[in-house]
Amino acid sequence: MEKKVKAITSRDVDFAKWYTDVVVKSGLAAYSNVRGCIYIPPYGTALWDLFKSEFDNKLKTLGYSNVMFPLLMPKSLLQKEKDHITGFSPEVATIAGEDPDPLLIRPTSEALFCDYFAKNLQSYKELPLRLNQWANIVRLEKNTRPFLRTTEFFWQEGHALFATEEEARTEARKIHKLYEDFVRDLLAIPVVSGQKTESEKFAGAVDTYTIESMMYDGQALQSATSHYLGDGFMRAFGVKVQGKEGEIYPHYVTFGITTRMIGGIVMVHGDDNGLVLPPRVAPTQVVLIPIKAVDVSGIKLPSIRFHVDNSDNSPGWKFAEYEMKGIPLRIEIGPRDLEAGDAIVSIRYSGEKRKIKIDDLPAAVPALLDEIHEAMYAAAKNRLDSSKSFIYAPWCGSEECETNHKKKTGMGSRCIVGESKGKCVVCGKAGKHEVVWGRAY
Amino acid sequence: MEKKVKAITSRDVDFAKWYTDVVVKSGLAAYSNVRGCIYIPPYGTALWDLFKSEFDNKLKTLGYSNVMFPLLMPKSLLQKEKDHITGFSPEVATIAGEDPDPLLIRPTSEALFCDYFAKNLQSYKELPLRLNQWANIVRLEKNTRPFLRTTEFFWQEGHALFATEEEARTEARKIHKLYEDFVRDLLAIPVVSGQKTESEKFAGAVDTYTIESMMYDGQALQSATSHYLGDGFMRAFGVKVQGKEGEIYPHYVTFGITTRMIGGIVMVHGDDNGLVLPPRVAPTQVVLIPIKAVDVSGIKLPSIRFHVDNSDNSPGWKFAEYEMKGIPLRIEIGPRDLEAGDAIVSIRYSGEKRKIKIDDLPAAVPALLDEIHEAMYAAAKNRLDSSKSFIYAPWCGSEECETNHKKKTGMGSRCIVGESKGKCVVCGKAGKHEVVWGRAY
Repeated sequence: MEKKVKAITSRDVDFAKWYTDVVVKSGLAAYSNVRGCIYIPPYGTALWDLFKSEFDNKLKTLGYSNVMFPLLMPKSLLQKEKDHITGFSPEVATIAGEDPDPLLIRPTSEALFCDYFAKNLQSYKELPLRLNQWANIVRLEKNTRPFLRTTEFFWQEGHALFATEEEARTEARKIHKLYEDFVRDLLAIPVVSGQKTESEKFAGAVDTYTIESMMYDGQALQSATSHYLGDGFMRAFGVKVQGKEGEIYPHYVTFGITTRMIGGIVMVHGDDNGLVLPPRVAPTQVVLIPIKAVDVSGIKLPSIRFHVDNSDNSPGWKFAEYEMKGIPLRIEIGPRDLEAGDAIVSIRYSGEKRKIKIDDLPAAVPALLDEIHEAMYAAAKNRLDSSKSFIYAPWCGSEECETNHKKKTGMGSRCIVGESKGKCVVCGKAGKHEVVWGRAY
Repeated sequence: MEKKVKAITSRDVDFAKWYTDVVVKSGLAAYSNVRGCIYIPPYGTALWDLFKSEFDNKLKTLGYSNVMFPLLMPKSLLQKEKDHITGFSPEVATIAGEDPDPLLIRPTSEALFCDYFAKNLQSYKELPLRLNQWANIVRLEKNTRPFLRTTEFFWQEGHALFATEEEARTEARKIHKLYEDFVRDLLAIPVVSGQKTESEKFAGAVDTYTIESMMYDGQALQSATSHYLGDGFMRAFGVKVQGKEGEIYPHYVTFGITTRMIGGIVMVHGDDNGLVLPPRVAPTQVVLIPIKAVDVSGIKLPSIRFHVDNSDNSPGWKFAEYEMKGIPLRIEIGPRDLEAGDAIVSIRYSGEKRKIKIDDLPAAVPALLDEIHEAMYAAAKNRLDSSKSFIYAPWCGSEECETNHKKKTGMGSRCIVGESKGKCVVCGKAGKHEVVWGRAY
């Protein structure tokens, strides 16, 4: 494919520059005057709203209810669980003032949920309790990039309590699988799926499960995590409920996926002409461009997010614009096509053009969108499987070897994907785990 | 009606205590460890989500697109428009640190939108531009009460730009009317509708339009406002676009409605048995309680938010619980009723019971919910019209008289509802405006 939009840096020349060109020029993000924050204009917001609504449905099916909990918390609350405060403290934004117990902006909400549980939960009969919130989070990051690492980001955070360890562990794994399925089925993104090492897990967690996707440049993006937190938070916050026999501490599971995935979509699927959106999350799935003002008002595509561009911009300008915005399908119809009953359909992902009868569009378009989804997934999966950027190698389990591996190669442990009896790739001693190593965002 | 739930203070004995009893015990809000902030549990969140989705549809019909803009802004940005910073400065939360231009948490987002407009808008062809966001806002309030006045609250904030003053003024009034219709049609709340005086208008606005509702205790609740801001913000932020002839400053309109309306619903409709929800915004519209475990699995109410309570709690407990939660309709069916094909339907709002044939429920229930909506609106309207808590009286237009009126009577100007040639109720000189005066939350 020729590079039609001159203003985008080629992704093979400067991937970082290509990324910011695409997110800004396609309308996913705009730079702001706020350090490390972005404006998310209508196009980016529409994408996130679709993502949100689809994932919210999945959570509701699993019995989750949404809540709205505070943005702020007193410092003393975050300090109650020691590993947790240690993990987050450098990144926390504090409200100025004289207060000895100042308010902080949530860097995550475990402390708030635990405070709520402590005050409101009484009996094991209320378990399992499955809560979720869609919220904004602030972490004072040093090096920021749109969506990938921003001072403020948006996410879904699930918080669930169970009477037993077994139920809680089952839930953490179920959500891990849900994330894997969701990014595959909605975003056409394949992942490596596994467990974080001790040093990489969430601050306060017993076990952290993760899905890791691979960007076009071979770097990993931690895409969603699910944590089994044991009952440590419950003990720290005094969340005790009446059990069948005496009082019990519930077992805690939390999990989240963020606006960072918008960056993932860009870096997995985009190309030198701009964004390429997977059809199921595209705010506009199909754009119809009438050539020489032919009348296309009879063409309806119910159940498709469909836009007809009758503006007086030139067809060439429109083609480049919708390519940049990554609209999965473009339909052109000129006077002769109309006479012949034909539509010229262009697939953004492959550049391929097909002639489809106008009368067949309502049936053909949904099938074609599914075909595009599958093809995009297959291409990304092929790249992931054949890439040398993710290395599978045994590890002995020592933090020293893990750190050394990263120091020497730049590749940290992304996740443990199984057991191993091979030799540790660092020290040569007996391996315990098969680990995926890679550079990461 | 007898007072069934002993734990609620009577609203005629202590209205403030009644209010907090109801919001907490019904599950709309829970107290938090965060000064001036509340937890909004599943029930309160479900109510807000319905409100949000209905209003979002209205805005989309008017051409508004959603955006997600930052929570934080540098102080220098808020300071660009002078009236604006003066109005908000005491309430603004600042992030601690050494920065000479510290970050603030948005107390409203005009400054951020103007910064976005300045960087991204080029031509009058992009006008009208209609943006909206659903966001959390922080204002450091001294006296806080759940929903009515909280440190953090949630709202919808619309920000629209127009090429001419006329278009902008038309939009501000159109939105004002939309709010009036919306709270009537969704929340069954009648309002007094008018314009704010100079001293009461939004910081930086030319004109502020307001809807004011009246709570059960006769106090006013400012329920939604819409502002025509002229081009002052545009000049302060340098938002200049290419017009048909030379550069122009667009005209700015902003407007908002907040989670405070949840408090409004409680205080307009609630009674001594708890919450009474208007049917169109009730998360559960109808609850069915089978008596003596009769099989009601055949009863379906499609298109209704419908819950069957098969739990082993006693019918008495269930009745009190759903009354407390304000579910508009309760259906009971016992063994004899089932045999006779009857359902006993209780209307939460009036306490009235009706016998309806089980087979007729799918047609009867939606009609009954509409009837309840109308009756609730009529009762609230009757109270508003016959109350002596809102006083209509002429005002000369001087700020001194306005202030004196509030000092002497406790009743501030709520809004200007028309012109007046009567004598000013304070100084006795010639009146200019007919004003509604009242105590307010």
